[in-house]
Amino acid sequence: MRLRHKPWAREELSKRPTIVIQEPALQKGNWNDIFGNNNPIYIEVGTGKGQFITKMGQAHPEVNFIGVERYESVLITAMENVEEAGVANVKLLSEDVGDLTEFFSAGEINRLFINFTDPWPKNRHEKRRLTHEHYLSMYREVMDSQGEVHFKTDNQGLFEYSLHSMSSYGMSLKNVSLDLHNSEMEGNIMTEYEEKFSAKGDRIYRLEATFS
Amino acid sequence: MRLRHKPWAREELSKRPTIVIQEPALQKGNWNDIFGNNNPIYIEVGTGKGQFITKMGQAHPEVNFIGVERYESVLITAMENVEEAGVANVKLLSEDVGDLTEFFSAGEINRLFINFTDPWPKNRHEKRRLTHEHYLSMYREVMDSQGEVHFKTDNQGLFEYSLHSMSSYGMSLKNVSLDLHNSEMEGNIMTEYEEKFSAKGDRIYRLEATFS
Repeated sequence: MRLRHKPWAREELSKRPTIVIQEPALQKGNWNDIFGNNNPIYIEVGTGKGQFITKMGQAHPEVNFIGVERYESVLITAMENVEEAGVANVKLLSEDVGDLTEFFSAGEINRLFINFTDPWPKNRHEKRRLTHEHYLSMYREVMDSQGEVHFKTDNQGLFEYSLHSMSSYGMSLKNVSLDLHNSEMEGNIMTEYEEKFSAKGDRIYRLEATFS
Repeated sequence: MRLRHKPWAREELSKRPTIVIQEPALQKGNWNDIFGNNNPIYIEVGTGKGQFITKMGQAHPEVNFIGVERYESVLITAMENVEEAGVANVKLLSEDVGDLTEFFSAGEINRLFINFTDPWPKNRHEKRRLTHEHYLSMYREVMDSQGEVHFKTDNQGLFEYSLHSMSSYGMSLKNVSLDLHNSEMEGNIMTEYEEKFSAKGDRIYRLEATFS
């Protein structure tokens, strides 16, 4: 994604502290307090402009959602989406996914979404892919032992890589779809990218994975 | 595959005992004697008309190949292919894959190919799929601990199922290709089905999997 420089973004994000949680490390282990209930917590890593998490929040009021995005200028749009939709069960973090374990304690997360993440196709960038072993190990640390990773992408190479990487890490895959929009899956909520790529006729790949 | 009735097939198969090994259970643990060398042994389950295994035998004289096929009327063609090619390192078994452990002892097989096997799409036929847990457990029993399963199919549903089934069985997947004929794989040898389906423009799916 080409990012426009928005120097005012950080300040703007800090003006909505009930949506964009400031200093999330202070909430570690206490996220249910932020939401004011004991509902399960689902996070999205690389939440982008927030269409997915906002619509998920609307569709599933019985779940708490947290979107993590490091690009402030993109998160601004997510913040506006969440505010406009008035979904109190969706929070955002202006943070790097690589710092996840600083914000969440062991077992605190019940489901984790990875949607249309940067494929980093060059071999020398492998470690940056959000399905690299390094990230999987981080996800496992914060997730409930029964927790599921839900992964969608239009990128064939990234999906192939992730099948290798997840299975080699010992994860079990289920509900794999190699052509999501021609499958029987119900209730799929699309991201901005997903709408764009599927309109072009590209295949969308999806899987669910568990650590046990 | 629609099979023509060939009542003479069994008799015909028994006339080439150096190619179609009779009473394979008697060879259990001693397959290297049949081949007269200590080369690795690769088997193909559901070898059909034998184009793949015959060409593999020609391309890899340093490997011993055994094709297993339960339909006698199909195996006849495989036998003719092997005979015509004059490949001494390819043997055939007129047997059911479900009886594999009767013919091979633990660790005797170094690689196992599953090519364009019947997808058995109905749920109630799941156990018949050659990537069902029941078969995987049989493969593991006869395979070397470092041995690889190489699986190709044009059937999206079977491939999706197999990703689930293999990963849930604890297998690691590698070199996954979701579009084999547009990938960088070199030295691919096509089966009869593969030629037919890829000529129609269908995607071919492929993976390698290990038990460790």
